[in-house]
Amino acid sequence: MAEKLVENITAMDEDFAQWYTDIVKKAELIDYSSVKGCMIIKPAGYAIWENIQQELDRRFKATGVENVYMPLFIPESLLQQEKDHVEGFAPEVAWVTQGGLEPLTERLCVRPTSETLFCDLYKNDVHSYRDLPKIYNQWCSVVRWEKTTRPFLRSREFLWQEGHTIHATAKEASERTIQMLNVYADFCKEVLAIPTIRGRKTDKEKFAGAIETYTIEAMMHDGKALQSGTSHNFGDGFAKAFGIEFTDKDNKLHTPFQTSWGVSTRIIGAIIMVHGDSEGLVLPPKIAPTQVVIIPIQQKKEGVLEKAGELKEMLKDFRVKIDDSDKSPGYKFSEQEMRGFPIRVEIGPKDIAEGKCVVVRRDTREKHTVDIGELPGFVEKLLETIHNDMYERAKAHLEACIYDATDYEEFKKIIDEKPGFVRAMWCGDVECEDQIKADTTATSRCMPFDDTSRISDVCVCCKKPAKHLVYWGKAY
Amino acid sequence: MAEKLVENITAMDEDFAQWYTDIVKKAELIDYSSVKGCMIIKPAGYAIWENIQQELDRRFKATGVENVYMPLFIPESLLQQEKDHVEGFAPEVAWVTQGGLEPLTERLCVRPTSETLFCDLYKNDVHSYRDLPKIYNQWCSVVRWEKTTRPFLRSREFLWQEGHTIHATAKEASERTIQMLNVYADFCKEVLAIPTIRGRKTDKEKFAGAIETYTIEAMMHDGKALQSGTSHNFGDGFAKAFGIEFTDKDNKLHTPFQTSWGVSTRIIGAIIMVHGDSEGLVLPPKIAPTQVVIIPIQQKKEGVLEKAGELKEMLKDFRVKIDDSDKSPGYKFSEQEMRGFPIRVEIGPKDIAEGKCVVVRRDTREKHTVDIGELPGFVEKLLETIHNDMYERAKAHLEACIYDATDYEEFKKIIDEKPGFVRAMWCGDVECEDQIKADTTATSRCMPFDDTSRISDVCVCCKKPAKHLVYWGKAY
Repeated sequence: MAEKLVENITAMDEDFAQWYTDIVKKAELIDYSSVKGCMIIKPAGYAIWENIQQELDRRFKATGVENVYMPLFIPESLLQQEKDHVEGFAPEVAWVTQGGLEPLTERLCVRPTSETLFCDLYKNDVHSYRDLPKIYNQWCSVVRWEKTTRPFLRSREFLWQEGHTIHATAKEASERTIQMLNVYADFCKEVLAIPTIRGRKTDKEKFAGAIETYTIEAMMHDGKALQSGTSHNFGDGFAKAFGIEFTDKDNKLHTPFQTSWGVSTRIIGAIIMVHGDSEGLVLPPKIAPTQVVIIPIQQKKEGVLEKAGELKEMLKDFRVKIDDSDKSPGYKFSEQEMRGFPIRVEIGPKDIAEGKCVVVRRDTREKHTVDIGELPGFVEKLLETIHNDMYERAKAHLEACIYDATDYEEFKKIIDEKPGFVRAMWCGDVECEDQIKADTTATSRCMPFDDTSRISDVCVCCKKPAKHLVYWGKAY
Repeated sequence: MAEKLVENITAMDEDFAQWYTDIVKKAELIDYSSVKGCMIIKPAGYAIWENIQQELDRRFKATGVENVYMPLFIPESLLQQEKDHVEGFAPEVAWVTQGGLEPLTERLCVRPTSETLFCDLYKNDVHSYRDLPKIYNQWCSVVRWEKTTRPFLRSREFLWQEGHTIHATAKEASERTIQMLNVYADFCKEVLAIPTIRGRKTDKEKFAGAIETYTIEAMMHDGKALQSGTSHNFGDGFAKAFGIEFTDKDNKLHTPFQTSWGVSTRIIGAIIMVHGDSEGLVLPPKIAPTQVVIIPIQQKKEGVLEKAGELKEMLKDFRVKIDDSDKSPGYKFSEQEMRGFPIRVEIGPKDIAEGKCVVVRRDTREKHTVDIGELPGFVEKLLETIHNDMYERAKAHLEACIYDATDYEEFKKIIDEKPGFVRAMWCGDVECEDQIKADTTATSRCMPFDDTSRISDVCVCCKKPAKHLVYWGKAY
């Protein structure tokens, strides 16, 4: 039975997409629903999201963010107020045309993102430099009418947070954009054990209405990129389109500057595809809903369940549960591995007699025999070790799968044969991006911040003088 | 300027509705938006909701609740599956008829509540007694196309939590219904300092599709009722309509039993109308986003702001902020009162010289001079005292405004002249409820649990034999 549970997961190198779907379903993170393209986030999946929310929200608030809640609907005329923005979103929104028994006089779209609503609020609330900055955020769901959907990665409705800020100066807006990108990158590293590449998007890939979009890109097991968080600098474009003005200290009217930034439930897809293995999910300890599962061996023998309860009590600083169901220990082990709980503790009559228990890491399956009295300290340290090791393994994978290309034939050959990212120079013209996408299906992921190396003087595609180093890759 | 701030609040006894609106606007809890009937919950309002969420969620989880997230949309055919339910909700839902550039083949309603979606999930996931119970909850927004709206009390979109459970036996479902009602009543008392009357709704007032609806009813300053939380027992009605069945230990197919229960942002309206006064909001300490505001006096004098900072550090176990803006102390006092922060601490050069500070309660405006070294202990105790006093005052008001009536003329006279609830016997016929509503605008609030007294043998309206004691009142 234990084997059957695992047998049902498709091998990762046989069919990565099916492996992903199997894990999502078998670890009971998400289910399909009667609502086409919309997902049900089940308890095991939602508990991960709650932990992500809590950690991110704490980090946001430490930078001065205040949470708000804006309406779900955007009147069509409001959506249309910023030209680039409406062009980007109008083709993929859901429209409400009837309220109660009456048709509406103006259609309302279900928010795909809320820039226009925040502008509408700022127009009312921002009049003086004293009203600035406003550093707002909301946790909500948004709707984009996608044609093909995949659990967490792409669905018609998804959960996210969207931060929206407004500032007196361009410099402040620009700094906030980078600050929030760094919050995301640090969060991925410190909480999710996911290394990311931070950089700027090309004009083709940036957000509708932004002057600059920044991104963190993570690399999945199969070498594909997953855009894991974005931060946009709008300059004064939205403010001008919405007529937002404030009186500065000089007593003159000025236009303010805005940003927005978001992370969504998509990032749970990254957790699965960065850390998961052939036995199932491998959850980073800091967001694992259950960090330690205690599995009693020969649980009907006297004293076993009592001792398991004592261990749970000893570990009360962690998220612990006991699996005392009537399944076999082997099945429970497989289930714990499938669900990705970082540590399991096995305790049976023999262990109890020796005053010991067996501690098994999910990520490496390494076993330790631990004195019961030392368990809490051991678990604390082990959770930290697991986190660090998961990060280091993901980083090694990322670094091992980055290739440089200076020649277009070489570039195409790498993209075709080797999973991963390719670093190559680019002239800055969208024609080359389009050409590369047409030839390889790879897209420009970002122009990295912290890498000013120029691996060639000419564009890898057209040989014209190069402007930027770009990471290219296939992406989710 | 300080006076002007307060002057702008309409006197409570002059125009209670306007007083309420003034407070909501001036304390910056909510704002209107370009989306008719939808509200913007601003930082001061949303922070209250976050504290409510945190406290309720903790209490839910202690009873075994797991959080999930269900789709925002319900296909029309799914909404129609339970007859009473669709009749109750269909007239007031918003319909999505177009997704992206294509018209939909089936309309989707924006969820007004999610019973039908949970039934759809349970139909897939519940097959055996081993799958039961499921104790699920979600935090989300819902939409009901209301014609007239008021901040927090009635809007086209509002935030809430909706719990949905499914059980093997009718007894378990019935017990869960009462358990959650008690969670709500305890939460109101212990966290919001609001006393409530717990009881069962009459058939006329119960939820569409429920066999029994339980409610907690709070009394506002003006004597009107506000239904503050409801808990519904569905019996097996929904399960039968959706064909949910499970194999029990007897190896036979049985139909399970369901409940649902919810509390919404409406409850913030209750906080305002139970505790507020002519100076503004009075927030219960446990959910006040700022529990203590420190106001420096002569803040430009050397050492004042430093000492204020020291006090803040001493009070770091509480939610504290310093108001060091360039407004006058008098203005800051008024603003603190308007915003309802439970305690203000005044600290100026004279206080510093004496090693003391002045502590002022928001609810009674009582002043204390406190040795700085004793401040943390004093504040801790005072917050508790404030909570208890607020509860006792609200309870005294509730009890003072409950009247008994055994005669219909008397009943009508009380409803007409005295704000509050009337206890009167009822025959159980909807005709008498309708008559009472037509004559007085009062509705049956509930048939109380904990009050089995029979104040008369006959119905107050029709004089036929009485079945139930009922609380009647005008309601929000």
